[in-house]
Amino acid sequence: MASRYDRAITVFSPDGHLFQVEYAQEAVKKGSTAVGIRGTNIVVLGVEKKSVAKLQDERTVRKICALDDHVCMAFAGLTADARVVINRARVECQSHKLTVEDPVTVEYITRFIATLKQKYTQSNGRRPFGISALIVGFDDDGIPRLYQTDPSGTYHAWKANAIGRSAKTVREFLEKNYTEDAIANDNEAIKLAIRALLEVVQSGGKNIELAIIRRNQPLKVSH
Amino acid sequence: MASRYDRAITVFSPDGHLFQVEYAQEAVKKGSTAVGIRGTNIVVLGVEKKSVAKLQDERTVRKICALDDHVCMAFAGLTADARVVINRARVECQSHKLTVEDPVTVEYITRFIATLKQKYTQSNGRRPFGISALIVGFDDDGIPRLYQTDPSGTYHAWKANAIGRSAKTVREFLEKNYTEDAIANDNEAIKLAIRALLEVVQSGGKNIELAIIRRNQPLKVSH
Amino acid sequence: MASRYDRAITVFSPDGHLFQVEYAQEAVKKGSTAVGIRGTNIVVLGVEKKSVAKLQDERTVRKICALDDHVCMAFAGLTADARVVINRARVECQSHKLTVEDPVTVEYITRFIATLKQKYTQSNGRRPFGISALIVGFDDDGIPRLYQTDPSGTYHAWKANAIGRSAKTVREFLEKNYTEDAIANDNEAIKLAIRALLEVVQSGGKNIELAIIRRNQPLKVSH
Amino acid sequence: MASRYDRAITVFSPDGHLFQVEYAQEAVKKGSTAVGIRGTNIVVLGVEKKSVAKLQDERTVRKICALDDHVCMAFAGLTADARVVINRARVECQSHKLTVEDPVTVEYITRFIATLKQKYTQSNGRRPFGISALIVGFDDDGIPRLYQTDPSGTYHAWKANAIGRSAKTVREFLEKNYTEDAIANDNEAIKLAIRALLEVVQSGGKNIELAIIRRNQPLKVSH
Amino acid sequence: MASRYDRAITVFSPDGHLFQVEYAQEAVKKGSTAVGIRGTNIVVLGVEKKSVAKLQDERTVRKICALDDHVCMAFAGLTADARVVINRARVECQSHKLTVEDPVTVEYITRFIATLKQKYTQSNGRRPFGISALIVGFDDDGIPRLYQTDPSGTYHAWKANAIGRSAKTVREFLEKNYTEDAIANDNEAIKLAIRALLEVVQSGGKNIELAIIRRNQPLKVSH
Amino acid sequence: MASRYDRAITVFSPDGHLFQVEYAQEAVKKGSTAVGIRGTNIVVLGVEKKSVAKLQDERTVRKICALDDHVCMAFAGLTADARVVINRARVECQSHKLTVEDPVTVEYITRFIATLKQKYTQSNGRRPFGISALIVGFDDDGIPRLYQTDPSGTYHAWKANAIGRSAKTVREFLEKNYTEDAIANDNEAIKLAIRALLEVVQSGGKNIELAIIRRNQPLKVSH
Amino acid sequence: MASRYDRAITVFSPDGHLFQVEYAQEAVKKGSTAVGIRGTNIVVLGVEKKSVAKLQDERTVRKICALDDHVCMAFAGLTADARVVINRARVECQSHKLTVEDPVTVEYITRFIATLKQKYTQSNGRRPFGISALIVGFDDDGIPRLYQTDPSGTYHAWKANAIGRSAKTVREFLEKNYTEDAIANDNEAIKLAIRALLEVVQSGGKNIELAIIRRNQPLKVSH
Repeated sequence: MASRYDRAITVFSPDGHLFQVEYAQEAVKKGSTAVGIRGTNIVVLGVEKKSVAKLQDERTVRKICALDDHVCMAFAGLTADARVVINRARVECQSHKLTVEDPVTVEYITRFIATLKQKYTQSNGRRPFGISALIVGFDDDGIPRLYQTDPSGTYHAWKANAIGRSAKTVREFLEKNYTEDAIANDNEAIKLAIRALLEVVQSGGKNIELAIIRRNQPLKVSH
Repeated sequence: MASRYDRAITVFSPDGHLFQVEYAQEAVKKGSTAVGIRGTNIVVLGVEKKSVAKLQDERTVRKICALDDHVCMAFAGLTADARVVINRARVECQSHKLTVEDPVTVEYITRFIATLKQKYTQSNGRRPFGISALIVGFDDDGIPRLYQTDPSGTYHAWKANAIGRSAKTVREFLEKNYTEDAIANDNEAIKLAIRALLEVVQSGGKNIELAIIRRNQPLKVSH
Repeated sequence: MASRYDRAITVFSPDGHLFQVEYAQEAVKKGSTAVGIRGTNIVVLGVEKKSVAKLQDERTVRKICALDDHVCMAFAGLTADARVVINRARVECQSHKLTVEDPVTVEYITRFIATLKQKYTQSNGRRPFGISALIVGFDDDGIPRLYQTDPSGTYHAWKANAIGRSAKTVREFLEKNYTEDAIANDNEAIKLAIRALLEVVQSGGKNIELAIIRRNQPLKVSH
Repeated sequence: MASRYDRAITVFSPDGHLFQVEYAQEAVKKGSTAVGIRGTNIVVLGVEKKSVAKLQDERTVRKICALDDHVCMAFAGLTADARVVINRARVECQSHKLTVEDPVTVEYITRFIATLKQKYTQSNGRRPFGISALIVGFDDDGIPRLYQTDPSGTYHAWKANAIGRSAKTVREFLEKNYTEDAIANDNEAIKLAIRALLEVVQSGGKNIELAIIRRNQPLKVSH
Repeated sequence: MASRYDRAITVFSPDGHLFQVEYAQEAVKKGSTAVGIRGTNIVVLGVEKKSVAKLQDERTVRKICALDDHVCMAFAGLTADARVVINRARVECQSHKLTVEDPVTVEYITRFIATLKQKYTQSNGRRPFGISALIVGFDDDGIPRLYQTDPSGTYHAWKANAIGRSAKTVREFLEKNYTEDAIANDNEAIKLAIRALLEVVQSGGKNIELAIIRRNQPLKVSH
Repeated sequence: MASRYDRAITVFSPDGHLFQVEYAQEAVKKGSTAVGIRGTNIVVLGVEKKSVAKLQDERTVRKICALDDHVCMAFAGLTADARVVINRARVECQSHKLTVEDPVTVEYITRFIATLKQKYTQSNGRRPFGISALIVGFDDDGIPRLYQTDPSGTYHAWKANAIGRSAKTVREFLEKNYTEDAIANDNEAIKLAIRALLEVVQSGGKNIELAIIRRNQPLKVSH
Repeated sequence: MASRYDRAITVFSPDGHLFQVEYAQEAVKKGSTAVGIRGTNIVVLGVEKKSVAKLQDERTVRKICALDDHVCMAFAGLTADARVVINRARVECQSHKLTVEDPVTVEYITRFIATLKQKYTQSNGRRPFGISALIVGFDDDGIPRLYQTDPSGTYHAWKANAIGRSAKTVREFLEKNYTEDAIANDNEAIKLAIRALLEVVQSGGKNIELAIIRRNQPLKVSH
């Protein structure tokens, strides 16, 4: 029945669904698990490293990348789609800096990405982007930020969240373990991200990629 | 049977329906309930806060936002679609101020939004916007305004109205309880909005977001 | 069977019908009833006020509006479509005045609207407009005019006519009661319009909106 | 079976038919009957007046109109389509006069109309025009002309012909009664046109609209 | 089965056919028979006059027309399509003369027409032209030419050929009777064309239209 | 089953086929057989002359034509498509000469043709070209060249190859008989081409068209 | 079932697949096997030479080509598609050199190719490119690089990898035999590439084409 409403362009089904968007979310659910933690003085992104083929160079399978000096993004879903979104976001960051003479805020660049995604759910003959993203960083005010966007183009701020495969399990773990105490200390926040991922990653901590931004410190990505 | 008339573009069915528009209204009916009250010296918007995930930041799940200093909008339906509409409306507010040197009237910006929506019901290969909106504010004449638009692009002025999930129940409550007395006093008007929402919101007043504009006073949004 | 000819674009059926246009006329038949009377020194438009929701502001559900100082239009069908047509007509009225330094004639603006409608019945991937309209006014020669257009883009002049729900019943009433005597006196002409509508409007005269243009007098709309 | 070849655009059926064009001709066959007579010193167009609704203004249901001072056209089929064709032809007449400093010949403007129609049978996503036309006039050489075009874009010159409902019956009448004698005298030619129409028009001569062009005399349309 | 490959645009069927082109050829086979003869000092085109309606003016049903002073074309198939092709060819003849200061050769204008036709077999959403043509004339070298094109856009030179209804019968007649002797004498060549057509035209020579071009003499068309 | 993947545009089938391209190859397989031989000091193209209709002028049914003074092409498939490709290639040859002041190499113009063909296999709503081609010539280095392209847009260099009807049979003959000895002598190379074609052409050598290019000698086509 | 989601444009299936992309990968799996080895001071590409037809010129069936002086690419899949991608990449290499005055890095041109491919998976009415590629080279830093891209537009860096027919078997061989020792010596690295290919190529080493780039030495392709 559903198949009648999901061809060619993104249109509404009789009960108000946009199937193409929902199918894109299925692609996201097949992606690597990613987790984001907003600490007191730190933001942390963690991603399950896909069991890389033995001879594959890990450097290019990263699911975390910097959008600007102070903003970082992890994604789940189609890697090629993600690259398009990341490129556009990076150009916007640079262009914003040149025009406004200030770096983008984390929410600004999140909204930019979400708007780009929404456009592909309402335009003729183009499929939605098959990715969700966690976007973290510090604005000039020194407050840590964590946003999440999905293929529909919605975005929300979170204290901690997960996307991709088994995201629900990770989110439930975070809901039980994320407390003010747990994140006041930077190391504890990092540990929380790692422990959350280990809930669904079998082969242990060596299969986790981390990105850490501390207030007023340069971005640090560890592999 | 219906499925024959709702693909690819918005066309008429044999009995004069535009199914894509009606399906978009189904998406609206799944959205959070919003209520608008036009008082004597006040306009009030109330929205049911969706039961936010435990770690979600409430600030970004708001369904109410300001279009200009004196105009506020609540929506029900697809959040990503709403953002597109809101952005366009905000740009129009600023652009109007620059060109005409006067702020927009509430009806002007409502008509702008409704016309944008209609366009998407009559153009090739684009689905309608999946949102309804309540738009409130004061014009220069100091008269309070409340408008409602739906996915078809129609809009009307109301004394009080509701959109989204269980909108019918809330509207019936308002019809019974909205009286001149009930809104002459600002606090009473606010209470009426809250009571109307409580008809359908189970978890009590702490799950309600309010936006209040008083005559000649700055916009106030309380969460 | 019909369903084969009505998708995507407006094409001919084997027996020479344009189904999309006929379906749009179904949308018109669901609209509020409107009546137009061409008197000796007066033109009158009357529209059944839809049973407005208790808290709805009547001012915005009007089905009658002025296109220029001397031209008025009532419509039946999709309100959002009507607004598009009305806006375009109003712009044309102003633009004509600026270019030709004379106001439009009633037939000129009627033909403008009809041509706009025809275009949407012969262009790729756009549905027809779902409205019929009655257009009245006085030209510089002081002769009263009444025109009617439908979704196909045809238009005709009438002494009296009706559109929308139960238009046939109202038209039959007009055919029996429209005489030279009945319209020589302005008040009689107005009464005729009201009586015609009362044939199909149950809740009495308070549910009727009227627009009256007298020769060399400003337009008057009463609610 | 036919239904497979008539959707979306005008394409050939396996046996070499263009169904959309043939369906448009069905729309023509539903139109009012029109007749054209080429006399010795006169050309005559006659059209059955559709049984106008009692309150309809006859002036706007005319199926005959002047394209230029010396050229007249009657049509059968979709009125709104005809208006588009007529407008384009009138503009061409004026534009030709300005550019070439001579009025169009009757054949020139006929070919212009026929070419416009052909274009709509071979272009993507647009239906053919649903009208046939009889075009009459005198060129500078003082020779009377009568042309007929159909939805396919063909045109031919005739001594006398008919289009629209029951055109075949009228044409057979003309074939029996059109003689050199019958058209040498202007009045006889006019009578022939009327008699031909009366073959299929039941309500007598008062329901016939006539357009008459005499050599070197201004166009005369009688109703 | 065929029906699957012939809609919307001209695409290949599994066995390498272009059905739309073949269907267009069916339309050609329904057209009037035309014959072309290349003599020693003469080229002749002959066309069956369609049994013209009694009152139709023969002048406008001609299937032969001059493209330039020295080039003539007969066609079979859709008259309205032919007119488009003829107009484009005539413009090209004039434009060539202005640019190159020499008239077109017969092959040049044939190739121009064939290329135009091919384009319509390979472009999105336009049907092929439904005509075949015989093109004759003399080039500056005084050599007579006869070419034939079909809806696919191929063209070939012939000594003698036929197109349209019963073309095969006429061609077989020509193959039996076309000899060097039969065409050395101009009158014999003309007679051959007439005799060939009479094979399939029942009502005798008065129903045949001829176009004759003699070396270094002006084009002559007899009806 | 196949029919699902071959409509409207060229897309992949589940097992990685492009059906439209394969169907175009069927059209090629129906074309006249052509053979190409790369000798030591000579290149030869031979084409089966289609059994020309008795009165057809052989000159225009040639399947071999020169692209430039030093490059020749034979094709199999749709003649009208071939003409388009040949025209574009000829223009490119001239344009290259004017821009670079050197003639094109044989591979350059082959790549140009192949790229043109590929473009039609990956663009919206246009069918592939229905031809294969053999392209021969000498470059400035005096080395003989023979290339073959097909509807997909691939091309390869060959010592000897065949396209069109029964190409496989001819190719097998060539594989058995093409030796260094067989082509060292120019006449032997020509004979090889003829013998190869005679494998599949029944009516003997008079039905074969040849094109021969010798090193530093002008192109020679014999019929 | 799948067939419903793979027509016309690349859209998501209900479980989040892009079928057109997966079908393009099937076309890749039918292509010649290619292998890439990143040694310590060397990068090696090896491709199985397709069993070339006896008379085919091997020079034009190469699956390896240079993109710039220091970058080489091998591909598997549709040759005509590969040529388009290679041409675009070469132009980008030159254009980059002219603009930035530095040669491209190997990753830069890989990303360029991958982005081009992604674009064809998300644009209206164009199929994906049917090729995978191995891209090797040295950057200015003297570090050897090996990247692999597929039809979806993803790319990764590898120590050693294979694409095309039986790629899995070759990759497993590489995983067993690729060690630091095995590649420290240039000759060993070359031998590894050959041995890997021989796993799936039956006719021995003479059917293997190699491209070798040594640090600070010109590119060398051996056949």
